[in-house]
Amino acid sequence: MCQLLGMNCNTPTDVTFSFAGFAQRGGRTDHHADGWGIAFFEGRGARLFIDPSAAADSPVAELIRRYPIKSRNVISHIRKATVGAVLLENCHPFMRELWGRTWVFAHNGDLKDYAPRLHGQFRPVGGTDSEQAFCWLMQELAKAHAQVPPVDELTRTLRELLPRVSRHGTFNMLLSNGEALWAHASTKLCYVVRQHPFATARLADEELSVNFAEHTTPDDRVAVVATTPLTVGEQWTPFAPGELKVFVDGAPLSA
Amino acid sequence: MCQLLGMNCNTPTDVTFSFAGFAQRGGRTDHHADGWGIAFFEGRGARLFIDPSAAADSPVAELIRRYPIKSRNVISHIRKATVGAVLLENCHPFMRELWGRTWVFAHNGDLKDYAPRLHGQFRPVGGTDSEQAFCWLMQELAKAHAQVPPVDELTRTLRELLPRVSRHGTFNMLLSNGEALWAHASTKLCYVVRQHPFATARLADEELSVNFAEHTTPDDRVAVVATTPLTVGEQWTPFAPGELKVFVDGAPLSA
Repeated sequence: MCQLLGMNCNTPTDVTFSFAGFAQRGGRTDHHADGWGIAFFEGRGARLFIDPSAAADSPVAELIRRYPIKSRNVISHIRKATVGAVLLENCHPFMRELWGRTWVFAHNGDLKDYAPRLHGQFRPVGGTDSEQAFCWLMQELAKAHAQVPPVDELTRTLRELLPRVSRHGTFNMLLSNGEALWAHASTKLCYVVRQHPFATARLADEELSVNFAEHTTPDDRVAVVATTPLTVGEQWTPFAPGELKVFVDGAPLSA
Repeated sequence: MCQLLGMNCNTPTDVTFSFAGFAQRGGRTDHHADGWGIAFFEGRGARLFIDPSAAADSPVAELIRRYPIKSRNVISHIRKATVGAVLLENCHPFMRELWGRTWVFAHNGDLKDYAPRLHGQFRPVGGTDSEQAFCWLMQELAKAHAQVPPVDELTRTLRELLPRVSRHGTFNMLLSNGEALWAHASTKLCYVVRQHPFATARLADEELSVNFAEHTTPDDRVAVVATTPLTVGEQWTPFAPGELKVFVDGAPLSA
């Protein structure tokens, strides 16, 4: 099983604290040593860092831990190879352009006998079931909308499309276009919203605490989504099986 | 004017020496301080690093200088903004997927009154003439071939398409799908092939020399393409105006 980390904020925020604990799961506190990746949106563009080596040992991961890149939407993934070899092109997140917008996707789980009909413009570069699912989602979104629709319309379309993927297996996924973060759980995902009054949290995977009040203003709001809680001392809310949540400006939109 | 750097090799090679000199042009020895980027192919995947800050001061550029990423095809770009604001989405290289392959593109020059008809699947995310030209090239390649054709067929198609862009202005560009490096000059581009017997070269922009014989085997062959020669003591061959060259395994293919 792989691990997912997503962040959605109302103001550009650095993810170094959460990433520090998360990256430990890539080869140190957990067995996900087959590559990792992280994407940061900045306006309509995104920085994508992917690496087929273990996150705990990667010089690129070390850069991310030290160099605070501020972003309103972040998706990260640590990989335990189940389908597809340990190659750069099989590292999540995957990135594509649709409607002149950047889309980023990461998946945790396995899709059995999954071979969606990809007759459109999106084809997988690597050999994973995950990238197939992403290409199929992009293809179906492109068919459903002529240009980029508002977030709630995209959510409605995704609510129809996601069960058509998840009936093939485990499909916990994060998707963002820089405007919103969509998170779908079929088995395991949880989230926390950090907002005023900010408290102190301690990483579950590393001896590191942070007092968020020291690093934030009262208006800041940050939602963090992860496979399992990254911190102790915070209230993480688990997703129900089959649940899709969309996060905008650091909070989940109500359905 | 921006600066271009491309590398094509017969064996994975690190670009740290050439990049060290090249990055100095991003804000120190030359006035290209509006962002930079570099893409490394690794199999069918690519690592893309882009940064809207000056290459000479960027922590990400510092990582590239120190951490030797080995690749057979590299494209890098330092930007002096002429069209499009200083934003992440306007940094070259640009990346897209076509036929399940990764394509990377960077451009130096200006295209005047350039508004190609983009009726296909590729739309610019940012506001540059360069990304428009890339989207148009991808769209026309997609129309010309149903799936990824051999390098010589792609070269023939590009030979027809490129003059249709360059008649709008200056169009020096580098394009790669990880298999070959296409380089087109409308005004300024030159290249060098490094092969046995390897000599010593000194960077034109920084006090740094390298004896390639110490870092290579007799079978290694590396082609480097750049806007202007990066070294002294090597024979750089200038492109003729309108010339397209394709590099495979570290050498230009004959036309």
